[in-house]
Order: sequence, then structure tokens, then C-alpha cells
Amino acid sequence: MSKTDLSYSLRLKLYTDEKFFGLGVATLLEHVQETRSLLQASKKISMAYTKALKILKKAEDNLGYKLLIRQTGGVSGGGSYLTQNAIKLLKLFRQFEADIESFADKKFEILSDKMNKLK
Amino acid sequence: MSKTDLSYSLRLKLYTDEKFFGLGVATLLEHVQETRSLLQASKKISMAYTKALKILKKAEDNLGYKLLIRQTGGVSGGGSYLTQNAIKLLKLFRQFEADIESFADKKFEILSDKMNKLK
Repeated sequence: MSKTDLSYSLRLKLYTDEKFFGLGVATLLEHVQETRSLLQASKKISMAYTKALKILKKAEDNLGYKLLIRQTGGVSGGGSYLTQNAIKLLKLFRQFEADIESFADKKFEILSDKMNKLK
Repeated sequence: MSKTDLSYSLRLKLYTDEKFFGLGVATLLEHVQETRSLLQASKKISMAYTKALKILKKAEDNLGYKLLIRQTGGVSGGGSYLTQNAIKLLKLFRQFEADIESFADKKFEILSDKMNKLK
């Protein structure tokens, strides 16, 4: 194993009694921001639309507020968009993740060096 | 959602081309240290013995060194024990994990505070 071969992965999830917010919901919300459509967003991450609805509902139930506003019809032809709380939560979660990843990257370099001395 | 309800989980895995070292192997090795038996160790984490053998082999193949010495019979009646490299690796991995967890704990407090203001 050469030094460059080694990498790590880090996964963060938010829990109450059950997992309710992690990479899945975060990515889904980001794609809704982009596409204005929950269906398109779920397709982009190869998630069944029914599952997308389910994980969003679970997140909303646990948080106690709505993440998504879904409009049907109207002048603009409908579409989905994020609530202000969803935008803020997403930003907080991604910042939390980025802070930890940046710290973990430094620690991983040290780990990786030390692991390469074990042979 | 009250502040105390919220928690997070963090999972770390080491990769080369495939995942080869994470919580599963680490816990397995710790139980081997305790029980001197891979069978007992796998039972403790409700893992099939064949799966335990498989994930250990994958870890050893990726690392390029042995993690476990399995002795059969002999005066002491056999048993499994960790190689020096396994002991060192385990310590390094748990330290890596502990460092990141301790940092993430602090960041999570901030996240949690900010999340509680979203209502």
C-alpha cells in the first residue's frame, strides 16, 4: 500500500430517536434548489420519489418545521422550493461537515504517515 | 425538538480502492484481544464467523500485513491474538477517531444551538 492509495470517509448524521438528517436529505434539498423539482432532485441521486418524500417528511417531523414548499400549477407552472429554515439548516449542516472534514484531513495525514511506518 | 434530544453520529472508514478498515474490523480486533478467540469476538458483535474472516482478510490484503495470528492446539489450547502491527494500527485508528470526535463534539454544540434557533 503506497501512501497515496489510502483515503478515508467520514459520515455525519443527525439523530433524535432515529436518524433524520444526513447526506441523503442534504443532497436532495440541494438538488431541489437547483431544479425546483423534488422529482428531478430524487432522480439526480437515484432515489425513488416515494423514498424522497418519506425522508423529507421524517426530517420535517423531527425538526418541527417544513423544509419544502410544493406548489402545483399556477402562473409559473408550480415547482418545489426550500423554506428559509431549510436554507439555513442546510448551510449549518454543510458548515458543520466542512469544519470537521477540514480537521479530519489534517489528522488523517498524521494517521496515514504513521500507518505507512507499520510494515 | 428540545436541545437535549438532538445528537449526531460520525463514521470513519479507511479506503484504498475499497473500504477495508472501519468500526467492524476495529471492534472485532478489540474483542479478539479480550477473548483470544475470533469466534467469540464475532459472536460478541453478532457477526457471522465467515464474515469476520472475510473482513479481516480484506483488511490484511489492503494493509499488506497480518493482523491476527491464529494458533490451533498446543499447550495453551490455541487461540487468536493480534500482531504487533494490529495493536499499533488499532491504537492509531482509535486515536484518529477520538481526536475527530472530540473536535466534532464542540462543533456539534454550536450547530445544535443554532439549529434550536430555527423554529
